[in-house]
Amino acid sequence: MIHTNIDINRIGHLTFGGADCVTLAEKYGTPLYLLDEERLRKNCRDYRESVKRYFGAGSLPLYASKALCCKEIYRVINDEGLGADIVSGGELYTALCAGFPAENIYFHGNNKTCDEILYALDKGIGCFIVDNHDELEFLNAECVKRGTKQKVLLRVSPGIDPHTHRAVVTGNVDSKFGVPIETGQAFGFVKRALECEGIKVDGLHCHIGSQIFDKYPFTDAAKIMLAFAAKIKKELGAEFGTVNLGGGIGVRYVETDPKTSIDVIMKGIKEELDKLVAEAGIRPPVFLFEMGRFVVADAGMTLYTVGSVKRINGYKDYVCVDGGMTDNPRYALYGSKYTVFNATHADGEYSQTADVAGRNCESDDVIGEAMSVQRFERGDILAVAVTGAYNYSMASNYNRVPRPAMVSVKNGEDKLIIKRETYEDMARNEL
Amino acid sequence: MIHTNIDINRIGHLTFGGADCVTLAEKYGTPLYLLDEERLRKNCRDYRESVKRYFGAGSLPLYASKALCCKEIYRVINDEGLGADIVSGGELYTALCAGFPAENIYFHGNNKTCDEILYALDKGIGCFIVDNHDELEFLNAECVKRGTKQKVLLRVSPGIDPHTHRAVVTGNVDSKFGVPIETGQAFGFVKRALECEGIKVDGLHCHIGSQIFDKYPFTDAAKIMLAFAAKIKKELGAEFGTVNLGGGIGVRYVETDPKTSIDVIMKGIKEELDKLVAEAGIRPPVFLFEMGRFVVADAGMTLYTVGSVKRINGYKDYVCVDGGMTDNPRYALYGSKYTVFNATHADGEYSQTADVAGRNCESDDVIGEAMSVQRFERGDILAVAVTGAYNYSMASNYNRVPRPAMVSVKNGEDKLIIKRETYEDMARNEL
Repeated sequence: MIHTNIDINRIGHLTFGGADCVTLAEKYGTPLYLLDEERLRKNCRDYRESVKRYFGAGSLPLYASKALCCKEIYRVINDEGLGADIVSGGELYTALCAGFPAENIYFHGNNKTCDEILYALDKGIGCFIVDNHDELEFLNAECVKRGTKQKVLLRVSPGIDPHTHRAVVTGNVDSKFGVPIETGQAFGFVKRALECEGIKVDGLHCHIGSQIFDKYPFTDAAKIMLAFAAKIKKELGAEFGTVNLGGGIGVRYVETDPKTSIDVIMKGIKEELDKLVAEAGIRPPVFLFEMGRFVVADAGMTLYTVGSVKRINGYKDYVCVDGGMTDNPRYALYGSKYTVFNATHADGEYSQTADVAGRNCESDDVIGEAMSVQRFERGDILAVAVTGAYNYSMASNYNRVPRPAMVSVKNGEDKLIIKRETYEDMARNEL
Repeated sequence: MIHTNIDINRIGHLTFGGADCVTLAEKYGTPLYLLDEERLRKNCRDYRESVKRYFGAGSLPLYASKALCCKEIYRVINDEGLGADIVSGGELYTALCAGFPAENIYFHGNNKTCDEILYALDKGIGCFIVDNHDELEFLNAECVKRGTKQKVLLRVSPGIDPHTHRAVVTGNVDSKFGVPIETGQAFGFVKRALECEGIKVDGLHCHIGSQIFDKYPFTDAAKIMLAFAAKIKKELGAEFGTVNLGGGIGVRYVETDPKTSIDVIMKGIKEELDKLVAEAGIRPPVFLFEMGRFVVADAGMTLYTVGSVKRINGYKDYVCVDGGMTDNPRYALYGSKYTVFNATHADGEYSQTADVAGRNCESDDVIGEAMSVQRFERGDILAVAVTGAYNYSMASNYNRVPRPAMVSVKNGEDKLIIKRETYEDMARNEL
């Protein structure tokens, strides 16, 4: 099995986090998102412990909310001692609803609205990651008006290409995020921020991309960031308390993806960073990280019911399910690969090559093309593994399809954490 | 201007359907969807009149709901004498909420769920477009149980590639939609349907794709469809009352897109069809069409507020807006091109090349790259034209960003038709 929380029980049904997937599909209907709470907590612990081990108690491991934002996730990550990065007022609202402490929240985004900035200030958010001059000036003016001094990190782009899919590459010099170091503009950005009365510059932030399986993209970025910090120290006399290296540690979606250990990666990063800090001749900063996918991806699974199996003689086979790009747009957006199971006959042989197609009226609405799959029949439950990240959070109502429910499983027990959307919900705001 | 419902008023503001876009942005906030009711009605009338002129009063022009589904749109298209094609129980629910007559609804989809089929039967839906054997058998069994005979069209794939973007090509032989003619499988499908006691086979359906600017993809498909109908007549003795050729007439998103006239295209199709029907030696069927984009695209516009203008020296400029792939994922999905205006300074020169970037934490969240645009400053209203189709209907809450409100404009008057989503709305189903 691609992950250890997936198994097959005595009656040949797939299990996830110890729970029988076919039973869950019958109880809650499909499509259905599952969340394995034990796996989620284990990922949080592995992350927290490796960060603590190599970067000390001062480094708060952050969870990148955009991977999966719902009330329950904020409860669990708070419980496990993680902070959160958010990217909108909506994520802030949800975190606060779940009782998440505002001081452990870092507010990201290349274009935060004025209303969102005011909302975050009102709620006493811990830190803004300021993206650009427009945001800096607005935030500063507001803090001066309030007589406060807001802790911020300044987002800079180190000019790193981590060789992952273009859409999730964000550290390159011409990114829409942050201010580039290479062009000299980041220096002016930091200089201005240091002058701002309402701003306490705690440090720098960069984010280089996603699905990274080794230390080098992080350490390459850190090298540039620390050299930049040394230049700031030399020319402006300022030293930073924090350098946030963002997220991006990859997860296994298919068998050919590498197996990763966050501990190994963090250890490797730490060893390089010690050298780089010494070379830079700066006071060692606290290093922060922001993992989203790593925390939730393999804690998620999606169950569908097969409605039709279609053979186009001489061409291809289709296994058609009752969801698709509405609950998981990642294949349509990025061509992302997934692993699927026949949850009803989980011990079946992989004897068929088929496209797993969604129910939406769009040709690109597929879960995967030319996949090696078990044999399926109408009525079988089809499980897609590793859907915890960027599925619920990216879901739409295209074709006016309701978003699925989400059920948390723990020690074989199940608990509804997100109710299935209704037709009424979808039309609620329409006059 | 790209379309005649866009103009500039005396104070240099962009107008849409006669309404001042800056005033609307101030009144309702941004991002904001606009719907020009007069243009929508004109498109409906042009469509209805050309269909009536060339295909007679028996041909009901259908609106493909998936382009834009909301209560108001069903009211207008019903008022203008159009029928609707739907692709889900959710679209059916919305149409019925708006008082749309069930008998004028055609139900599509490659994987309708059992619940949806029962719901549609309960509501007395006019016609099912049956996609495959699984659906046919379920529907037939249910109708036999109810003692009814349901009118259906059978979806077949003619094997046509209309040379448009892959995601919106649906008529090719290995499509997930329908049963292919080329492989001989469609013949068996029709034969079985004709035997079904609960099914009244009214005819055939195909859909070949989107953004089609001339008659040939339609007439090429019709040639195959009519030859197939002739074979059915000869070998099974059955004649069809209806052939539905689907939708797909293109619209102008950018100046380099062709100008289309639905009347010219329909006239061209009609002339070819007369010849093809004669050649096939069959009783002339009623021809149906299903246009979605054509009806609503240029009746829509999206307004954003510019939050930041970012120059990456020596690389590129960014104009960052307060929406993006959450309200319009078409660039992220297909690389679709759009035309943008500075609604605040609509008479400004096109003196800048920039990427118009969204607010979401994702590099691909852009409205367009390397666009020739007017100069923008923070606070300007940026208008994206021709967003009536596949914007609201495909919108998501990614990054937990609320979906925009939609305002209908008519003779310069404005009316809220979809309320802006709230933070509470987004978290409503979360426990």
